[in-house]
Order: sequence, then C-alpha cells, then structure tokens
Amino acid sequence: MFIFDIIDKKRKGKELTVDEINFAVNGFVEGAVLPEQMSALLMAIMLKGMTDDEVFALTKAMQNSGKTYSFDFDVVDKHSTGGVGDSTSLILLPILASLNVKVAKMSGKSLGYTGGTIDKLSSFKGFNVELSEKEFKTAIKKVGGSIISQSEEIAIADKKIYALRDKCACVESIPLIASSVMSKKLASGSNTILLDVKFGNGAFMKTKKMAIKLAKLMVKIGKADGKNVCAMVTNMNYPLSYGVGCNFEVYSVIKALNGEEGNLSKLSMQLSAKLYSMATGENYGKSCEFVNTALNSGKALNKLKQIITNQGGSCEILDNPNSLLSSKSVLPVLSKCDGGYVKSINALTMAKVQKLLQENVKDDEKKKCGILLNVSVGSFVNKETVLANLYSQKPISNEIIELFLSGINYVKTKVKQPKLVAKIIR
Amino acid sequence: MFIFDIIDKKRKGKELTVDEINFAVNGFVEGAVLPEQMSALLMAIMLKGMTDDEVFALTKAMQNSGKTYSFDFDVVDKHSTGGVGDSTSLILLPILASLNVKVAKMSGKSLGYTGGTIDKLSSFKGFNVELSEKEFKTAIKKVGGSIISQSEEIAIADKKIYALRDKCACVESIPLIASSVMSKKLASGSNTILLDVKFGNGAFMKTKKMAIKLAKLMVKIGKADGKNVCAMVTNMNYPLSYGVGCNFEVYSVIKALNGEEGNLSKLSMQLSAKLYSMATGENYGKSCEFVNTALNSGKALNKLKQIITNQGGSCEILDNPNSLLSSKSVLPVLSKCDGGYVKSINALTMAKVQKLLQENVKDDEKKKCGILLNVSVGSFVNKETVLANLYSQKPISNEIIELFLSGINYVKTKVKQPKLVAKIIR
Repeated sequence: MFIFDIIDKKRKGKELTVDEINFAVNGFVEGAVLPEQMSALLMAIMLKGMTDDEVFALTKAMQNSGKTYSFDFDVVDKHSTGGVGDSTSLILLPILASLNVKVAKMSGKSLGYTGGTIDKLSSFKGFNVELSEKEFKTAIKKVGGSIISQSEEIAIADKKIYALRDKCACVESIPLIASSVMSKKLASGSNTILLDVKFGNGAFMKTKKMAIKLAKLMVKIGKADGKNVCAMVTNMNYPLSYGVGCNFEVYSVIKALNGEEGNLSKLSMQLSAKLYSMATGENYGKSCEFVNTALNSGKALNKLKQIITNQGGSCEILDNPNSLLSSKSVLPVLSKCDGGYVKSINALTMAKVQKLLQENVKDDEKKKCGILLNVSVGSFVNKETVLANLYSQKPISNEIIELFLSGINYVKTKVKQPKLVAKIIR
Repeated sequence: MFIFDIIDKKRKGKELTVDEINFAVNGFVEGAVLPEQMSALLMAIMLKGMTDDEVFALTKAMQNSGKTYSFDFDVVDKHSTGGVGDSTSLILLPILASLNVKVAKMSGKSLGYTGGTIDKLSSFKGFNVELSEKEFKTAIKKVGGSIISQSEEIAIADKKIYALRDKCACVESIPLIASSVMSKKLASGSNTILLDVKFGNGAFMKTKKMAIKLAKLMVKIGKADGKNVCAMVTNMNYPLSYGVGCNFEVYSVIKALNGEEGNLSKLSMQLSAKLYSMATGENYGKSCEFVNTALNSGKALNKLKQIITNQGGSCEILDNPNSLLSSKSVLPVLSKCDGGYVKSINALTMAKVQKLLQENVKDDEKKKCGILLNVSVGSFVNKETVLANLYSQKPISNEIIELFLSGINYVKTKVKQPKLVAKIIR
C-alpha cells in the first residue's frame, strides 16, 4: 500500500477502505506518512468529502491511536462545539450529579474566540484539573461527577491531524470536524453522550444548516459505535450568558445556580433534562421537573461545592461571587439609543471586545478582563441605559467601547425571544 | 499576508493575486511556507483549477526563482513533453544548425517510462553535457547548436514543487504541468520555442483532448511573455522510432540521418520545418524543402558530427552504428499471427518491456538493453515473421516475450497509417 495511491484515489473522489484510512492515520502518527502527504490528503477530503463509512473508519483510527478510558459503571458526558458565554457544563454537571447520574467530563481549552471550560475552572483557586484515570474514577464515584482537562494521551492522531489542519486551512470540513470530536468522545468512555452543536456568528458553524449536518453526522458516528447519543442544535448568534470572559462566565454560573433566570440557565436546564432522560429512560417532561427542582432547591449549588472541594478547589467565590468582579478598570457603557428594544447582541463582536480587553494584560490576570451585560435580546433601552460593564486591568479605550456599541442593534417594536434550541437530532 | 489565507482562498475556488502566488512560491523556496502548506495549496489548485492570469504568475514566480539565461543572438528551442522512442531532438538539432538557425537545447533526464535526451547522449563516448553558460554560448556560436543538461540552478522553485507534487499525488494537473515546463523554457532564454505535446498510451497526457488543452495553455504562457511560440500535438500511441532504449534510439537517429524512412524521420522533419519557418519567417512549404535537402544531402549528419566533436564526444558510432547493438543477449521475437496487418504497437507496453530488459543490469550497461522493431503499424506479418530483436545483458525471460507480444495487435485488412500530427496550436 502506498500513500501516493491513497491520496490519488481520494483526489479522484473515490471511497477509501478501512485499511487505507488506517494506513494513512497510523503512518502519519508513526512518521512513515509525511506531513505534506497528510495535508494533501486532508485537502482532498475537504474538497471531495467522505462517505459515512469513511468517517466511521477515520474516527476509529483516531480513537484507537491513543489511550482509551472505560468505566465499570454508567457515566454520561455532554460536549459543546464551543460558543461565546457558554458555561452550561458547570451547571449541568452538578444538576445531574445531584440527581444521581454520574458525569465524567473531560474538557478542552479555549479555541479561537470561544472560551474553554478548563480556563474558567482556574477561577476556583486550587482546583485540580489534572487527575489520573484512577483519581478521576474515584472522584466520580465519591461525589457523582468530575471535570478534568482532556488527557494529552487521548486520540493522539487527532491532535497531530488537528494541528496540521490548522496550519493548512483544512479546518471547515464536516467529516473532519465530526471525526475529530467523536474520536475523543468515544475514547473518553461515556456510554451516554449529549452533543450541543452551536450555530451562529459566535460558533464555528455559521449556519443552522451546517450545524444540523454536523450534528447528524456526529450522532451517526456515535450510534455506529453503539453509544446512546443525541444532539441539540442551539443558537449562538448572541452570548449565552450575561458574562463574557472567564470570571464573568463563572459569575453568571453562580448566579444561575442561585436562581437567576436567563438563557444560560434555560439552556442548561434543557440540556440537563435531555441528558437525564437519555441516561435514566425517564420521559422529558418529568426530567425537566427533576432538573428544575435540583436547580431551584440549591441542591445543584451544593453539589458543585462538593465537586470543587473534592478536587482541591476553594469555594470562596461561590459564597461571594462579587469578588470575581474586582478588576482594576470598570467602565459602564451607556446606550446611545433614543428608546427601543434590543434586537440582537452579536456574539462574535462581544468575544472580540473581550479579547481586546485582555490585550497587553499578564496571562494570569486575563481572566479578570471581560463583559457583564445588563441587557439581553428584547430588553427595552433608553438613552443613558447602562448596557454593560466592561472590566479590564488597563484603561479601556474608546475603540473598544465603539466596537462594543456596534455589536448591539435596536428596533422600535417589541422583539420576540429567539429560540434557544433549533433542532434535536436523535 | 498569511499562507493560511492563500490556501483557504484557493480552496474556495477564488483567484489568487500575483502577490499571493509570489508569496507562496518564494516562501516555499525560502522555508517560510512549510511543505505541508504548499502541498495543501497544490491539491487545492489541482481540484479547483487556475485562471490564465494565475498560471502566468505561477510560471513567472518559478522562472524567477533561479538563474535565467539570455542570448545576444537569436536562438530557438524545441521541447517534447516526453514519449517512447522519441529522439527527434537529435535530428532536429543538426538539421536546423545546418540551415543556420541556432539551437540552444537544454534537456532533461528520463522521467517515468519516457527516455531522456541526456541519457541517450551518453552513447557518444566523452560527450560533455555539463557546459557553463559561457561555454554553451560559445559552442552555439561556433557550430550553430549545442545540447546540454538542464542547469540545476534553473527554476529552483519548480524543482522543489515538482518533487513535492511527486510525493503528494499532485502530478496530473494541466496548470501545474504547463507552468512547470514553461518556467524552465522561459528561463532558458530562447525567443522562439516549438512545443511537441504528446498524447496516447506512451505519453503523460493519455487523451488528445487533454494534450490540446495543455498545448493551448503553454502557448498562451509563452505569448504572454512575448515569445514566438507554437505547439504541435502529436500521437504517442506507438513508439516513434524502431529503437526503444538508449542505444537503440540513437541507432534509429543515425539511420534516419542516413535517409532511412519512418515515423521518427517524418516527425523530425515536420518539427524542423515548423521551427525553421517560425525562426526565419519562411513559408512552411519552402521550409520543408530546405529541411528535406539538409537531411538527404548528408549535411545534417555532418553537422551532428561537428556538434558532437565540439563537445568532446566520439563520432565512432556515427560511422559504425551496428556497434550500438553489441549486447550480450539478442533474441529475435517471432510473430504468432497467421497472416495479417499490424494494427497497433502499444508504446507503453514497449516501454515496460524495455524497463524489464534493464532490470538487474548494472547502471552503465542499461543503455545496451532495449528493442529494435522490425515492423511498424501497417506492416504485413506472417507466422514466423521477426517482429523485433530484444537486447539485454542477461538472459531474456518468457515473461518479457509474452509482454512484448501482448503489445502488438493485428487485423486482416490493410491498415491506414495513423496521423503523426493531430493539431497545431499557434
């Protein structure tokens, strides 16, 4: 078998066999297939596509290229394709654990404009995200859930291929994205998986159509591996939480766990109910009730305290969330709208504002830079209404304020709330 | 400017600017653009194509990446895209030089199944193909023509890109082939260029349609650079000469220069007449007459002797061509056809036979391995007719004979001679 022939076959749009895909993936990990050969193959895949069978084979090859986890008890996992102000994991995890559904969550770091759960956890002083497999399992058994940084040893081929795709403009391909995500999910050992596939200006998939396509393929991959898997296709055209940026998203999480209403709390509850229903077989309506009670009774907040404490983290901020807002510069931004309703808050613009607030700030202080919105889609706004507070460790420029203002649009008539969940793929 | 954006743009099928193409090519030569990035770009080019302006820019970028030659007198050049038994250069060169048209020929080595002119010249003992630019020019001025190995310093980017294409299955692309050939031709400094673009089983372009497409693009590139350029699209479904393999092709050349008729002599005269007409402005009919006289008067043969001697080569074989046939094993292959006409002689099969005859033979003796055909398309054949003699330095296996026989087909009725030149592109 020669890699030349495999590249040539895909270039001509033909279907590769399982053996050919294994040859390419394993050869690339071992060095027999050169990066320039793999990138040519990836570009051919991007432009010619892959059949479902090819995607299954690629996923398997990447999954088996590294360590795989397995549990001797049932665990569930939720995965988001990434968005702005998306902190549902930190709410879903304690809700489910408090309802006796064990959650084994491996999270990634931030990617592009989207925040990573692992980065947010750094707001809990001392919280250890680097548990061994044994420690991870023990933690889950003890308190019902654990969240750790995704092991470097998982899906090694995916990591190498992802780095190559990033260098060679082979990122936006549904088969490559789906197999990349699922290779890691399948290697993580959960038998029940809920995928939150986001679309919109703040997500990797810009259109609902693309997100649905990706969701369908990921669900197919999971099912082909015998997993209980579902996907929710959700709206990421506006930030999910009031807070954007590490400390501010954690602040929003704590508020939500204390009963504050909003899209973050709403979507977290829907995801939790869906995953609860998948794991237990309970109907969705009943699952919603359980989830609602767990959140509003304070049980979920208490569970989060247990989980944080169990991994060595300090729960100080859970009791005093305002301490998360102690940045050097705080600037309220006033509306220039002469009476109207917020029609849209551009998630990508908010993410860019947050990145600018972090610019030239020391790495360990970046989490103190972000946005806390005072308004959401549908809010009525007058001249001088405070739209948000911007936080940074350095003076905040007019340029940043202008960018922020450009991200919010108004209309004169009342605005319907946009739908959070566009579609469920089973 | 980032290579990522350039790859991404081409992936989306958009037209690259001159600056973007220069950035990619120069960056690749200098190392700033990685091989895996260049190969992804090449695959995107293969699958999305290039506009004429992009091809011109790519050709220029590669042409300017190395040394460029220029002459203070008019010189002509002929280039063949490569075929089996294609030795027209060694006939055209002395014909034109004997007619006072100066020929500056840089040749390549053999590629795949096609023989390279430089390899064939090794049959002339002592012939020096490694002249400096100054020596090359002096030789052309003195005897009217010179043939040398293409300088390693010419079109450096093309060499690097060609090697990459070869590894990454990015070979069969008209824009990439055309720009590769023309970058070297334009760097070689001739102002009048005749391209012999071959199609058929013994050529890189398998169909006439593809060859015409390639020829048109190469002519366009040459004209955009202000050159006097033409292309002849010629048939390579059968070997051009009776001889296939180094010594045997040189043998055919000597026979042709001594008046032996056949396709080799016919095509060489047509190419010579066309190039003479392009260089002098003389009409084609008159040019044919001059060429015919040069060949049949012995003037061309004498000119070849001068050229060979001038570059230190021995002319012994010109006077005694039979010495080229002194191989250890000689095997006449008899026809199994019970009366019929040769319908086709598969060029690719003949080339494969020749390669097999060379197998396990020392490198410096490989030139002694080859085929001398006794028949051509249209020949009448009986049982026991000698179709060819096979030459090697080792015993010749039945497998080789069977392969040879499989390459010749017969019919019962007389066969029309196939057209040598399918189209002329101006």
